[in-house]
Amino acid sequence: MTSDDDYALSEALGAIDSYIGQRIVVTGGLGFIGSNLARVLVKLGAKVTLLDSLIPEYGGNLANISGLEPSLSVNVCDIRDPYAIRHLLSGANYIFNLAGQTSHVDSMTDPNTDLAINVGAQINLLECARLVAPEVKIVFASTRQIYGRPQYLPVDELHPIKPVDVNGINKWAGESYHTLYSEVYGLRSTVLRLTNTYGPRMRIRDSRQTFLGIWIRKVLEGDPFLVFGTGHQLRDFNYVDDVIYALLLAGADIKADGKVYNLGSREIISLRDLAVSLCETASSGFEIVPFPEERRLIDIGDYFGDYSLIQQDLGWEPKVPLIEGLRLTLDYFASRLPEYCD
Amino acid sequence: MTSDDDYALSEALGAIDSYIGQRIVVTGGLGFIGSNLARVLVKLGAKVTLLDSLIPEYGGNLANISGLEPSLSVNVCDIRDPYAIRHLLSGANYIFNLAGQTSHVDSMTDPNTDLAINVGAQINLLECARLVAPEVKIVFASTRQIYGRPQYLPVDELHPIKPVDVNGINKWAGESYHTLYSEVYGLRSTVLRLTNTYGPRMRIRDSRQTFLGIWIRKVLEGDPFLVFGTGHQLRDFNYVDDVIYALLLAGADIKADGKVYNLGSREIISLRDLAVSLCETASSGFEIVPFPEERRLIDIGDYFGDYSLIQQDLGWEPKVPLIEGLRLTLDYFASRLPEYCD
Repeated sequence: MTSDDDYALSEALGAIDSYIGQRIVVTGGLGFIGSNLARVLVKLGAKVTLLDSLIPEYGGNLANISGLEPSLSVNVCDIRDPYAIRHLLSGANYIFNLAGQTSHVDSMTDPNTDLAINVGAQINLLECARLVAPEVKIVFASTRQIYGRPQYLPVDELHPIKPVDVNGINKWAGESYHTLYSEVYGLRSTVLRLTNTYGPRMRIRDSRQTFLGIWIRKVLEGDPFLVFGTGHQLRDFNYVDDVIYALLLAGADIKADGKVYNLGSREIISLRDLAVSLCETASSGFEIVPFPEERRLIDIGDYFGDYSLIQQDLGWEPKVPLIEGLRLTLDYFASRLPEYCD
Repeated sequence: MTSDDDYALSEALGAIDSYIGQRIVVTGGLGFIGSNLARVLVKLGAKVTLLDSLIPEYGGNLANISGLEPSLSVNVCDIRDPYAIRHLLSGANYIFNLAGQTSHVDSMTDPNTDLAINVGAQINLLECARLVAPEVKIVFASTRQIYGRPQYLPVDELHPIKPVDVNGINKWAGESYHTLYSEVYGLRSTVLRLTNTYGPRMRIRDSRQTFLGIWIRKVLEGDPFLVFGTGHQLRDFNYVDDVIYALLLAGADIKADGKVYNLGSREIISLRDLAVSLCETASSGFEIVPFPEERRLIDIGDYFGDYSLIQQDLGWEPKVPLIEGLRLTLDYFASRLPEYCD
């Protein structure tokens, strides 16, 4: 493995030929996961259109598709724009529906925006798909946040849904719409409940999408970073290429239609140990401090997911060891800080 | 017992003195449950304001408060109107939050309206309450529809949430916001998951709120009515006075704060047997016919709820036998068909 691109690609090329020549729409396509997916889809021979709002506080960044511009289409529009979405979905074979408001804290201070993007726009997208692309396959990126504070570990897909923030409630509604439209209207869709995803092209400007983003920025800038809480909270992490592979499998395999799957990792790690690993990789430091109030209120404690269902059904499992993924991520950003932080 | 008003009242007066002189807002206050609740609250000595949109397809009807007008305030406004809601909640001691889009079929043909009323307006109401009435107690009327097709019977509050229609998804989001605001902001709220409620002042013009409405209308007009499906589907029914009593208990008892409770009934009955009972009470007829397609898709099969949690916590149990409740309902509407059907 020589570059971050090749990792998912080697998996994907071997297993998936469903995407050759297919018309593919990726919502949130200039974001972290969308742009990594786009790189692989292009190499798989797909006709890719990326939709992105480029809202500055979100993950979209034109640097994410640097060099890829001639091989795909970019359409800047908000997923809340019903006319644009209707036009752009027309004739699509696949929709990777990744656009979303992802900040838990922002969802509490501005619940209406979270609702409009994570629920209202999702209904509109599904209604449009039903009208202009009834044969399309949709893969929706949901989140482990919908489970709230785990009642048992690892958390499987049958775990009660008890979100601790507005974002969790709305993401559950958004994914439920996908499942409902699958059951009632036969619109083919699969929901993946992502856990912490990290890797090249993630938002590192601040902690809006994940605390790991700002950790990486601080490390690369040579500053110590903050770990909130006790540092003992357990988490699971997926390197982005593993998530891309799950998205591609979920899109291609008819067994996934109408299903909901957790992602997850064999490696469960405390935030403190993660901080240590990151600092060893990059020679930096960190400090453990109490939660700021607005984060304490919506913290979920320990979390790690049971991903055996997608393993069974689709043969997916995470491949990239955490320490390797962290190294690839730091390597990617080391020479590109201005594109991501200025 | 001589009239429908006295039933809930005799219970409520005996047990509940929390409402004397209190400022109470009832959303959906001109509707079926809201107006029945208002009658009791007025007799309990509360200062009652009813908010209602009077959307013709919904349950609001000025006939529902006939004779009660001098004893309460009516403010006609839509719960989606953020400025009106903010003004009207100011200083409230209790909010009975009953406004909603309740038609399952309408939620499928117009998901955006259902979302705006059952989720968007709920967030707004909670945000307003937090700002202008932080000490208020809110009781929210949710629905058994959120469970979807029962995985076991009777359905308790821990049953998985798997709605089969847009309304079920949105009502779950609406109730989750109430619970969340209770947990995160300490805003006192209780959620009641209602099952089929019937009684005086229900909408009988059509089947928008419940099939039982149109059955009652047909019976009183001397026409046969239609039972969809096999007629073997099991259901539980609550007479409206029992629901009013549950609402009053949930509002008054601090043990209910932050909780979610099913209502339900000891009497479980098939739709066919219910139709037979109704016809015996009123000498009419019915016909069993296949589901219309748009209803078949979202039918939930058998349902009856386990209400032991509210029984334990608040001492609630349903008191009015079905056959008695049907008689009271038919008596009420017999002389009032023009007010409800013209």
